Amino acid sequence: MTHETYMALALEEAEKGCGWVNPNPMVGAVIVLDGEIIGKGHHERYGGPHAERNALAGCSRDPAGGTLYVTLEPCCHHGKTPPCTDAVTASGIKTVVIGASDPNPCVAGGGIRLLEQHGIEVISGVLEDACSRLNDVFFHYITEGTPFVVMKYAMTLDGKTATVSGKSRWITGEAARAHVHRSRHRYSAIMAGVGTVLADDPLLTCRLPGCKNPVRVICDTNLRIPVSSKIAETAGAVRTIAATAAAESDKSAALREKGVEILPVPLMGAHIDLAALMGALGEMKIDSVLLEGGATLNAAALQSGIVHKVQAYIAPKLFGGTAAKSPVGGPGADSPDDAVLLRDRQVRILGEDILLEYRLK
Amino acid sequence: MTHETYMALALEEAEKGCGWVNPNPMVGAVIVLDGEIIGKGHHERYGGPHAERNALAGCSRDPAGGTLYVTLEPCCHHGKTPPCTDAVTASGIKTVVIGASDPNPCVAGGGIRLLEQHGIEVISGVLEDACSRLNDVFFHYITEGTPFVVMKYAMTLDGKTATVSGKSRWITGEAARAHVHRSRHRYSAIMAGVGTVLADDPLLTCRLPGCKNPVRVICDTNLRIPVSSKIAETAGAVRTIAATAAAESDKSAALREKGVEILPVPLMGAHIDLAALMGALGEMKIDSVLLEGGATLNAAALQSGIVHKVQAYIAPKLFGGTAAKSPVGGPGADSPDDAVLLRDRQVRILGEDILLEYRLK
Repeated sequence: MTHETYMALALEEAEKGCGWVNPNPMVGAVIVLDGEIIGKGHHERYGGPHAERNALAGCSRDPAGGTLYVTLEPCCHHGKTPPCTDAVTASGIKTVVIGASDPNPCVAGGGIRLLEQHGIEVISGVLEDACSRLNDVFFHYITEGTPFVVMKYAMTLDGKTATVSGKSRWITGEAARAHVHRSRHRYSAIMAGVGTVLADDPLLTCRLPGCKNPVRVICDTNLRIPVSSKIAETAGAVRTIAATAAAESDKSAALREKGVEILPVPLMGAHIDLAALMGALGEMKIDSVLLEGGATLNAAALQSGIVHKVQAYIAPKLFGGTAAKSPVGGPGADSPDDAVLLRDRQVRILGEDILLEYRLK
Repeated sequence: MTHETYMALALEEAEKGCGWVNPNPMVGAVIVLDGEIIGKGHHERYGGPHAERNALAGCSRDPAGGTLYVTLEPCCHHGKTPPCTDAVTASGIKTVVIGASDPNPCVAGGGIRLLEQHGIEVISGVLEDACSRLNDVFFHYITEGTPFVVMKYAMTLDGKTATVSGKSRWITGEAARAHVHRSRHRYSAIMAGVGTVLADDPLLTCRLPGCKNPVRVICDTNLRIPVSSKIAETAGAVRTIAATAAAESDKSAALREKGVEILPVPLMGAHIDLAALMGALGEMKIDSVLLEGGATLNAAALQSGIVHKVQAYIAPKLFGGTAAKSPVGGPGADSPDDAVLLRDRQVRILGEDILLEYRLK
């Protein structure tokens, strides 16, 4: 077994915290002594004990002299819990192998230095890319204070998100749709335009068993969301925010009555200022947004510069149709040189469909 | 070394005939004796000796008792050359390992039976999928008599083939563009609409060194192709066919003068009948067509049922734009259930771009 093998197990542990730890990072830890795994743990819930402490607490024998594999640099500061470095040094662990270092300004290499000062050997950068990618949300939020925004869409191989008559059920198969629901669990909020609510009356919840619902954020400049929509009707059970530039009115009062939070957002041209909205969501500790917008909202989001990642599901079919919608509308680039550029490709096969993920350049 | 390893080498040999053997198949052969490769060969040019004969002729020692690996079932009929089975049985080869069987009605298992009657051990189906895919063109043409049509397009991750102002240079990077030129070499003809000629005045040639130019076929219902277009001007050097429903005229005479072949095709509605055109091209021994059409021609081709494969290059960029063109136009499907369905996905990374290839269901 190599460092990479144990770190891969720690990554598996970390992933178990997905959806439950935001706005904190997912972290996994594995403790190895004499070639035997004697403890495993992960950061289970926001505010709960960290992965290192969970792994140490669950050890089948004394970890003194052992090696701790942890996907993220151990914290060295008092947050919601005492510093993990204290627990590690007290345990007698001899070597700590780290995946990614912690960009949190309160840590940022301090955890590694502190361990080394206690005579612990530290090996860092093992499976660093995978460990960093796991926490792209945390790494962004801890440094910027605004949500990490993932623009998600499903399209046919000829770039259509619906047929000419506007039908889009279904473009992708079950595996891809389940993956979308997993994303709704993973990210803190889901965002859609009021146009989607008016057209489809969706619930925008996560329908996987044992998963959490994201906060629902509706971009609704003129507060057109019907009080009788499924989203408003279920706002008592699932946190729901209507981001609007409309003045207080009977409508806003009626929506509040249903449990919808009305979030005033300044105008930017004819629509709410999406960058201002992201600032407000960040202050609410919403660290991530899954943007399931139509072509117009997607274009506005790209133009506002709030998008960090694109998650495109591509189905093995062709709709055709000059008038059929594609994922990004708006005015569009005039020259190929003005395109929004993407990097860090990830390709994943999901049943008959393909998922292409990129970060924005 | 396993059967698969030697067959992979035979596949590499076969690929060397790419672009030169149409409408015959690409075939490669490797001869092994006592664990040593003593001969290799491929079908080099249309009408030339077959792979088996080339491999036998080039053996470094007597192949008697050896094993012949060949990507396609050896032929047993007199075509442009005498049957390969004669050469194999005369050589003393003990075992023949075959990739794909030959669907040519003149062969179709007959090669295998004949070898076995001569006491040669035959093992078939080794790397069968790869060996069959190599000759998707031949397998189609030999049974249907019409060209195998590959619909090729390049688009952004948001499904655009050009910006709103119609600019499309360049969407993909160098590796993808080189791959397109390789396809122009591989397939016998390239087909585009007259709209593309009028808009871009392209050459539609293959610009890779040592490669062949495809026959250029322009779908031109009303014979609007300018006599002064680059395509017409170069028609003396590169075979060029204007498929049209227009009556004979001074224009057609002027184009003929330049070397353009005028191919009369009946109308189907307002445009030339693409299925009839494919029949005519098939009779000219054009076994394959790379369709580099715009949205309208692509839609018409799909509707006519002439397309067999889709080759979609996807670039890591977003153009946006409600009015920007996407790969397939026309009226389009009304319901997702009416979509053109695709199968047999192949994913290939080409530099920063991705190539997704599918067969039509």
